Amino acid sequence: MSNEKRNVIVGQSGGPTAAINSSLAGVYRTARDRGYKKVYGMEHGIQGLLEGRYIDLSEHIQTGLDEELLKRTPSAYLGTCRFKLPEIRDNQELYDKIFAKLDELEIDCFIYIGGNDSMDTIKKLYDYSILNGSNIRFVGCPKTIDNDLAHTDHTPGYGSAAKYIGTSIKEIIRDSWALEVEKGQVIVVEIMGRNAGWLTGAAVLAKGEDCGGPDAIYLPELPFDVNDFIAKCKNLLSKKRSVVIAVSEGIHTADGKYISELGEGSEGYVDAFGHKQLTGTARYLCSVIASEIGCKTRAIEFSTLQRAASHSASRVDILEAYEIGGAALKAADEGDSGKMVVFTRLSDDPYQCGTEVKDVHKIANDERMVPREWITEDGTYVTDEFVTYVRPLIQGDVNPIMVDGIPRHLYKTGYQHMG
Amino acid sequence: MSNEKRNVIVGQSGGPTAAINSSLAGVYRTARDRGYKKVYGMEHGIQGLLEGRYIDLSEHIQTGLDEELLKRTPSAYLGTCRFKLPEIRDNQELYDKIFAKLDELEIDCFIYIGGNDSMDTIKKLYDYSILNGSNIRFVGCPKTIDNDLAHTDHTPGYGSAAKYIGTSIKEIIRDSWALEVEKGQVIVVEIMGRNAGWLTGAAVLAKGEDCGGPDAIYLPELPFDVNDFIAKCKNLLSKKRSVVIAVSEGIHTADGKYISELGEGSEGYVDAFGHKQLTGTARYLCSVIASEIGCKTRAIEFSTLQRAASHSASRVDILEAYEIGGAALKAADEGDSGKMVVFTRLSDDPYQCGTEVKDVHKIANDERMVPREWITEDGTYVTDEFVTYVRPLIQGDVNPIMVDGIPRHLYKTGYQHMG
Repeated sequence: MSNEKRNVIVGQSGGPTAAINSSLAGVYRTARDRGYKKVYGMEHGIQGLLEGRYIDLSEHIQTGLDEELLKRTPSAYLGTCRFKLPEIRDNQELYDKIFAKLDELEIDCFIYIGGNDSMDTIKKLYDYSILNGSNIRFVGCPKTIDNDLAHTDHTPGYGSAAKYIGTSIKEIIRDSWALEVEKGQVIVVEIMGRNAGWLTGAAVLAKGEDCGGPDAIYLPELPFDVNDFIAKCKNLLSKKRSVVIAVSEGIHTADGKYISELGEGSEGYVDAFGHKQLTGTARYLCSVIASEIGCKTRAIEFSTLQRAASHSASRVDILEAYEIGGAALKAADEGDSGKMVVFTRLSDDPYQCGTEVKDVHKIANDERMVPREWITEDGTYVTDEFVTYVRPLIQGDVNPIMVDGIPRHLYKTGYQHMG
Repeated sequence: MSNEKRNVIVGQSGGPTAAINSSLAGVYRTARDRGYKKVYGMEHGIQGLLEGRYIDLSEHIQTGLDEELLKRTPSAYLGTCRFKLPEIRDNQELYDKIFAKLDELEIDCFIYIGGNDSMDTIKKLYDYSILNGSNIRFVGCPKTIDNDLAHTDHTPGYGSAAKYIGTSIKEIIRDSWALEVEKGQVIVVEIMGRNAGWLTGAAVLAKGEDCGGPDAIYLPELPFDVNDFIAKCKNLLSKKRSVVIAVSEGIHTADGKYISELGEGSEGYVDAFGHKQLTGTARYLCSVIASEIGCKTRAIEFSTLQRAASHSASRVDILEAYEIGGAALKAADEGDSGKMVVFTRLSDDPYQCGTEVKDVHKIANDERMVPREWITEDGTYVTDEFVTYVRPLIQGDVNPIMVDGIPRHLYKTGYQHMG
């Protein structure tokens, strides 16, 4: 390898977030600042690269304003994929194809922004580079709203989703008190995170000097009992007339059955076209409350809004995502490979957080759950420790760049991506 | 009546919005500025007043900061009701009771902030004041996210809901392009407004230089045909792999049956507890798409978020709501009664809008629909005229007052309202 720097390629993978493009901007800016010639972007991650789909980012990100817009654009500018590389021994040809493409593009650094599966991709590509003597450096940059990546204090994307959830739950609680409902009402809000309750726990952020917060929070880390839930609702309704409860989409019974699957009774949820439908978790629980208690109910799902709501992003999250993108490129530039950059928290108050480089072999495919001691004994709320952990991650705002009353995004010209 | 000013009473009624508290702040501020002694607030509207529930607002709104917080607080600070006054001839006692209470509180001006039903309340109270020779002046102040009040250019609350809908639809579209879905996907977003399509039409605001906007918009003003809808989806999927469609919760077939009712096939949607459920409009349409086309679908409901999202309120809306609250009090102060204040648009570009006072007898119980000519010929979109109408109403932002990363609200101390 000569000392002259050649090119960088970057990809995005997995579920979109409000912060993944800020990491992309960080990779791009740092690559330019450190003297790389070109920064290529894979379209739809490694899958797109295999199909020869990539762009020269400098043709698309031309001004400082473009970079600012990119940091404020949700989803994934380059597109993502859910492609898992096979084991090297099972398909060496595929690896040869990838490395031939990388050599053709004169790549020195390969940065992949994503969650668990993406770190698995980094690990395998690195392992193959050792086998075939390539000098390309492979570094992963974390991302997921689920916050379930091991060995990092938190993941970019989580803070903005948490802020959206806290804000929206508070607005729902406020709204629920406007009208007096005879016999009371129960509102069940369903939040993403199938196995880890980090997002659902963020509902606690609605609580403050001006709001009591949700009345109960159910994480998927603990088994869920429908009868206990109904008893809890009855108890709450005996004290107040409007009850708001946050549940994870992934709550399940002690024997591992998702609550969302319980709706399929012997008669089944079958529509007029004979199509069997799985009802949502919140919807199912509302139907049980309605029949067991007889009060008004409302099921609310945040759906993709919780991962895409750039308009209420956390400043800490967006800036940290930018920084860690830069840190990933810096690590690769300085010779690291087979690594992931992670956040290490130095202090809660004042909040201080730095980045470190860790061996990706220790990280890939490891899910991190909310610790048992951060959930209350009775399993219906999160503790103050949880709040202390999450509160710094939602601080500050990133004002959208508004055009004609609506946030402006950066989109890839000449591409269907525009929508 | 002596020339010395006595007291004012104000109430809120109907569905909550992001702007109704700004109107309350406008009434309060103008009443203080014009020299009224006390400003009472009915708790839960006329229904609460009948039960003797009211507060002295000056005990709760003590500082300029309180007023600013009130303008930024969604829901309804005083609480609302859906209470319709009987005809005077059917229950004169009830009216005597109300007027006795108003006399006891030494009320000169009675301001009611609400939608159609609230204007009916103003009309009846005014009529009774003529019958019994009372000098109390009754003035209505419009409010509804549905924007379906007649004789006013628009209603406070609509602009903020429209801005939230445009922003969120854009974020959903952006998000939908991140992952490539085999066979494509259709996302159906369900929006409030049972009879009038003003809110659903606002989905068009996602469209701009950086976004193609939703692919189709279905308002409740026109009959909905499920087969045409499926054909439209197929056609769209032949051109692009991610389709986003906005539908009103109130779309219905030509013979008046709500689409949300079609899910009840002969087998019925019955859950494990034997409780019959109405599926949502978007959910039903997604089930039809899944069975007829076989692609991935996602149903999204904005639910109460669209009326409560103060964190993305429109500045024009919040300021106009404040102004029209003040204008209502001013009208009553200057002797008007049996009136509603309305917006009259003087110009689209530059946007200019003033307030006028109209006879409430002409307004009550009159629903205003989206004009046929503002919907495209084929009924699957809104026209540029619609955009020209709504665009000025979403301009500008009202920065939330953030405390610890979450918007701060004003809540009534000593009241369950806190949630």
